[in-house]
Amino acid sequence: MQVKKGNRTNTARIAILGGGNAGRGLAGYMSLHGLDVALYNRTFENVRGIMDRGGLDVYGVIEGYAQIPLVTSNMARAIRNREILIVTVPAQAHGFFAHKMAPYLDDGQLVLLMPGRTGGALEFAHIIESYPNTQNILLGEAQTFSFVSRTTGTSSVKVSKIKNLVRVSAFPASASREFLKRLGDLPLTLELANDVMETGLNNVGAMLHPTPTILCAGLLESRRGGYNHYRDAISESVGRLIERMDAERVNVASQFSPYPMTLLEWLEDTYDAEGNSLRECIQSIDAYDGVGSPKSLQHRYVLEDIPTGLVPISNLG
Amino acid sequence: MQVKKGNRTNTARIAILGGGNAGRGLAGYMSLHGLDVALYNRTFENVRGIMDRGGLDVYGVIEGYAQIPLVTSNMARAIRNREILIVTVPAQAHGFFAHKMAPYLDDGQLVLLMPGRTGGALEFAHIIESYPNTQNILLGEAQTFSFVSRTTGTSSVKVSKIKNLVRVSAFPASASREFLKRLGDLPLTLELANDVMETGLNNVGAMLHPTPTILCAGLLESRRGGYNHYRDAISESVGRLIERMDAERVNVASQFSPYPMTLLEWLEDTYDAEGNSLRECIQSIDAYDGVGSPKSLQHRYVLEDIPTGLVPISNLG
Repeated sequence: MQVKKGNRTNTARIAILGGGNAGRGLAGYMSLHGLDVALYNRTFENVRGIMDRGGLDVYGVIEGYAQIPLVTSNMARAIRNREILIVTVPAQAHGFFAHKMAPYLDDGQLVLLMPGRTGGALEFAHIIESYPNTQNILLGEAQTFSFVSRTTGTSSVKVSKIKNLVRVSAFPASASREFLKRLGDLPLTLELANDVMETGLNNVGAMLHPTPTILCAGLLESRRGGYNHYRDAISESVGRLIERMDAERVNVASQFSPYPMTLLEWLEDTYDAEGNSLRECIQSIDAYDGVGSPKSLQHRYVLEDIPTGLVPISNLG
Repeated sequence: MQVKKGNRTNTARIAILGGGNAGRGLAGYMSLHGLDVALYNRTFENVRGIMDRGGLDVYGVIEGYAQIPLVTSNMARAIRNREILIVTVPAQAHGFFAHKMAPYLDDGQLVLLMPGRTGGALEFAHIIESYPNTQNILLGEAQTFSFVSRTTGTSSVKVSKIKNLVRVSAFPASASREFLKRLGDLPLTLELANDVMETGLNNVGAMLHPTPTILCAGLLESRRGGYNHYRDAISESVGRLIERMDAERVNVASQFSPYPMTLLEWLEDTYDAEGNSLRECIQSIDAYDGVGSPKSLQHRYVLEDIPTGLVPISNLG
């Protein structure tokens, strides 16, 4: 079952929770597609420029000025009367957002963690279920984020790629069809995964982010970055190591999910990547050109993807 | 007990076995101090330039033209009638050299592995003891190499540092005093270690080489080096990790040796290094300025220092 983006009436009122690289790209894109978008960020200073400008200047594969009517660090205001709430923060912040959102959630609201990393929806559900008002929330997660996007200024964002396809699942999985149907209001190409074990264990960030970062830690730190994460840090040997890790991940995933997917298959699906090795595939993906390196090890490639990716996958293994 | 370099009659005939960065530096230095030096290299092509020139042009903390009367890849010729044989090859080649040298060893010859890494003299002794002509060989190892030196051309070498002090031990240790007395003919500052467990477990190469190399593997490989091994690759975090590894090494060493030495103590002893962290100490050592990075992972910093350093230390632990 697949929902194609295309001509539909975009009347949904949505909230994007998180105003970083991902949230800005998604907010800009949704607004340019006619949706009424609220943008929440925990630290208001970081999104003040968007409020001052009244929206975002979007560059890249989509371009234009995207109006954002509500920019706020007040959670109640951000999600009130919004049908779809998309959480676009590093997974280690899911707990904080669950606690912050729970008191204000309303019957019928849909919460999508984008992405969930490994176990995001499980953690989120565990936290909000103790609140009495969350019995009729549709909760789910995406396997990955739909874009490659980067902040380029205080009120601008570059979207360098819209991924071909992203898999989503509700938790519990019995709600997945309704979940996907509701997401059909959004201009994204989504496909139903079997369950959150599938979205969670096909965690490509955990494969692509921490290993190349750590295997460049010395120069990353002493030179404060200055290289391209995908193009430079994933050398032949680093790529082979990731392929070996990925084979272990697929082995774990196959115990929990009927549809484990290798990283190379995912790159082909998502980016039309071509090549016989991970390095070759990565080099064939133009969207990765603009993705610079972390400037320190205090970065989500380490702080997010190890505890919410490698550790739970390894523990399940 | 310490032997100071200084005014002595340098009449020894020595052989340097290995014509790489280390062997060239040592051969040039010894020749400039008046010793009769033979230089052996397994692959003759790599030292042909030295034979053609008749010696080495030495730059750095010592300078001059150093005559090398014999340059050869014939082991019998290299070591015949030489009193002191110094093996200056990566430790994974010790086995090859032991087999190659053993048939030609003569009563009274002294073999110094410089350095022995972890277990070098043990491996060397184990191999040569099956030869009947090796009963009166004085065998031992140095904890580290006496210089920082790098090849700069087909017949030239730069010696950027002569280390303050290097510890040596014979195997068995009962021969150490005679061993050190014989080495007194050489213009090096040597000090007696307790035994080869002390020289072998105070393996500083195993601490300083592989970790920074692997933690720069991505950029090292995709850019084929282009950075300074000590100054750039040992960043704050990499330095802290090495200090943690070093504490484990010292813990292992303390089970076998009365005099374990931390890496920071060794840097202070050897280079007069100053600083509160490994990174600070490294940055204070001018001799490390000129030490570039490996250009691939097929390098002794990985191929030597893991199997002949980290693995045996870890196994002993």
